[in-house]
Amino acid sequence: MSDLEIRPADSDDIPAIVAMLADDPLGAQRESPDDLTPYLTAFRRLAADPNQHLTVAVREGRVVGTLQLTVVPGLSRRGATRSIIEGVRIHADERGSGLGTRLIEWAVAESRRQGCRLVQLTSDATRTDAHRFYERLGFEPSHVGFKLPL
Amino acid sequence: MSDLEIRPADSDDIPAIVAMLADDPLGAQRESPDDLTPYLTAFRRLAADPNQHLTVAVREGRVVGTLQLTVVPGLSRRGATRSIIEGVRIHADERGSGLGTRLIEWAVAESRRQGCRLVQLTSDATRTDAHRFYERLGFEPSHVGFKLPL
Repeated sequence: MSDLEIRPADSDDIPAIVAMLADDPLGAQRESPDDLTPYLTAFRRLAADPNQHLTVAVREGRVVGTLQLTVVPGLSRRGATRSIIEGVRIHADERGSGLGTRLIEWAVAESRRQGCRLVQLTSDATRTDAHRFYERLGFEPSHVGFKLPL
Repeated sequence: MSDLEIRPADSDDIPAIVAMLADDPLGAQRESPDDLTPYLTAFRRLAADPNQHLTVAVREGRVVGTLQLTVVPGLSRRGATRSIIEGVRIHADERGSGLGTRLIEWAVAESRRQGCRLVQLTSDATRTDAHRFYERLGFEPSHVGFKLPL
């Protein structure tokens, strides 16, 4: 495969990112790719926050993967900064290509570069393939993830 | 019981917060209450970040509970902002008093006030009492929480 670039997302990438968020068994019910307005509003807020790193993987000028890396300072674990990975998506054409591994490895390396001592993420209990994927990359399923919609 | 105040933490609260972080089966192995330097460094970073809300519950001038609320913008779920609760601790003298409920209800109300559409947290798989507590408050254990120490 040709070279892959992993770089910060810009506003021109939003349609491709939203299309990937929606092309997913869970995302299909939650996203509105026909109305980008709320996504562009959220993007401006992300872009203004130095602890947010909305990231895309690009191959031959095409956005083929995305994730959001958030850096969270904190007191626990002797004042350890941690990072949180959210919104991981790989374009349907690229699944099984190793791109997911490349993206997560990028996020781990970037977290280390920023002085994080822990990387964490949650994955819906129904995404069992994703769980095996994260375990292969060294993540431990040590926690229960709780959510409360408002 | 006398009145409870829930307010932003200031640097004078750090010794009491760290003592609570360490007075915990998991925290005892991870914290260093005799050396506050890394905690004070982390506190300065938290205090400078408008999306971080390190919070204490105070009764009769004494810090009896703490949590960290982080506001995280994002693209998923139509550009929904979410909040993340970390580092929840209740002083040993106050466990079972309903203070945990008051603190989490405060965090949920504050999240709503800030326009969040989702509140999330992870809890170590061994903390089964905590899991029942969060479920009683309406949180769903819908996710697996993965961690990778760096």
